[in-house]
Amino acid sequence: MNQSMSMERYTRIRQLLKMRQPDLTVCLEEVTKAHNVSAVIRTCDAVGVHKVHAVWNEPENLRKCTAMGSDVWVKTQLHNTIQQAIGHFKEQGMQVLVTHLDDNACDFRDIDYTKPTVVLLGQEKTGATPDAIALADHSIIVPMVGMVQSLNVSVAAAIVMYEAQGQRQAAGMYEVQSLDEQECQLTLFKGGFP
Amino acid sequence: MNQSMSMERYTRIRQLLKMRQPDLTVCLEEVTKAHNVSAVIRTCDAVGVHKVHAVWNEPENLRKCTAMGSDVWVKTQLHNTIQQAIGHFKEQGMQVLVTHLDDNACDFRDIDYTKPTVVLLGQEKTGATPDAIALADHSIIVPMVGMVQSLNVSVAAAIVMYEAQGQRQAAGMYEVQSLDEQECQLTLFKGGFP
Ligand SMILES: C[S@@+](CC[C@H](N)C(=O)[O-])C[C@H]1O[C@@H](n2cnc3c(N)ncnc32)[C@H](O)[C@@H]1O
Ligand SMILES: C[S@@+](CC[C@H](N)C(=O)[O-])C[C@H]1O[C@@H](n2cnc3c(N)ncnc32)[C@H](O)[C@@H]1O
Repeated sequence: MNQSMSMERYTRIRQLLKMRQPDLTVCLEEVTKAHNVSAVIRTCDAVGVHKVHAVWNEPENLRKCTAMGSDVWVKTQLHNTIQQAIGHFKEQGMQVLVTHLDDNACDFRDIDYTKPTVVLLGQEKTGATPDAIALADHSIIVPMVGMVQSLNVSVAAAIVMYEAQGQRQAAGMYEVQSLDEQECQLTLFKGGFP
Repeated sequence: MNQSMSMERYTRIRQLLKMRQPDLTVCLEEVTKAHNVSAVIRTCDAVGVHKVHAVWNEPENLRKCTAMGSDVWVKTQLHNTIQQAIGHFKEQGMQVLVTHLDDNACDFRDIDYTKPTVVLLGQEKTGATPDAIALADHSIIVPMVGMVQSLNVSVAAAIVMYEAQGQRQAAGMYEVQSLDEQECQLTLFKGGFP
């Protein structure tokens, strides 16, 4: 029984690793509430993000994040500063999008998410930092027609990530394995499947 | 100063009432966490929902909801049972969609949201009740390719509501006033603009 359960789990994980989108990710900039971090990580797992990035001053948030991510299959990479994080993304040839409530920001649907992409998400109260906004390639906004000033950060993240998922699905990007085989094996090994 | 601020606010509210979508709404079925209720209400305001519906056994949740909704411009209507709620929607000729993690559920993008529509959202732990599922016209699902079993409820709500927003925007439904003028006047009056 135990063995067949673990075989089933192995098969499921093999399958999901095939659909992983290593060139699609988010970067949390000082997002502090555990329920928001948890919701973002669940969404990332659901659209096939392999690794989530974060910049945090408070190491306490890392613990929260790790605990929250325990039921999903997403890695976490920390960066000391937003400059370092964005440098890392640009080295990898990713377009850097910052979600930002600005009249000049472009509609999130006008972006081509089949390109390698990272979406920066800002802190609950203060939003993305001026550095993040200055260094990003584009500011994007989810349009709103009500009285509320902003959406919940995990909600905004999900709306953008599912736009990306829709575009990538239409482009057949979930039908070819993108994660390299070595990373697949390593992930299975670390998950207890040697 | 005070007078010009309130004139500005009046103009803004007049404008948003013009874009309200009275035939698009959600119904929360025993969603219990305040931060989820709050996030759903913010999203509803942002896509132009005029009134949110809820079925709650615990009156305490109503207080939470009212407090959470204070910074937005969305009304709340409570129903004693999900049967009564769904009866109310069907009387108004709405299609009733239940978000439900079932293999037979249809992809949320395959729905025509330009029709009068209500989206039922289930409780955080247990999901939508069997009654809700039985009485709804369609079960819909947001596809997931990871290990996580489900999305956060406010996240799922937002993904579906922004699909509706996109379809309605494309159909020009934000360019004509749908809320009847009497309801507009009443809303402005209650908001302190006689
Ligand atoms: C609650 S908002 C921050 C609000 C802050 N007062 C500001 O002006 O940025 C927290 C984060 O959610 C995301 N967000 C919220 N609403 C958004 C929208 N409509 N479009 C894009 N991102 C949004 C952004 O990442 C933002 O940094
Ligand atoms: C955390 S889920 C409930 C999980 C519960 N174990 C179940 O099986 O229904 C809470 C609510 O979020 C919504 N939801 C979460 N993920 C969803 C998805 N992928 N598709 C549609 N709705 C979803 C539904 O309204 C659901 O009732």
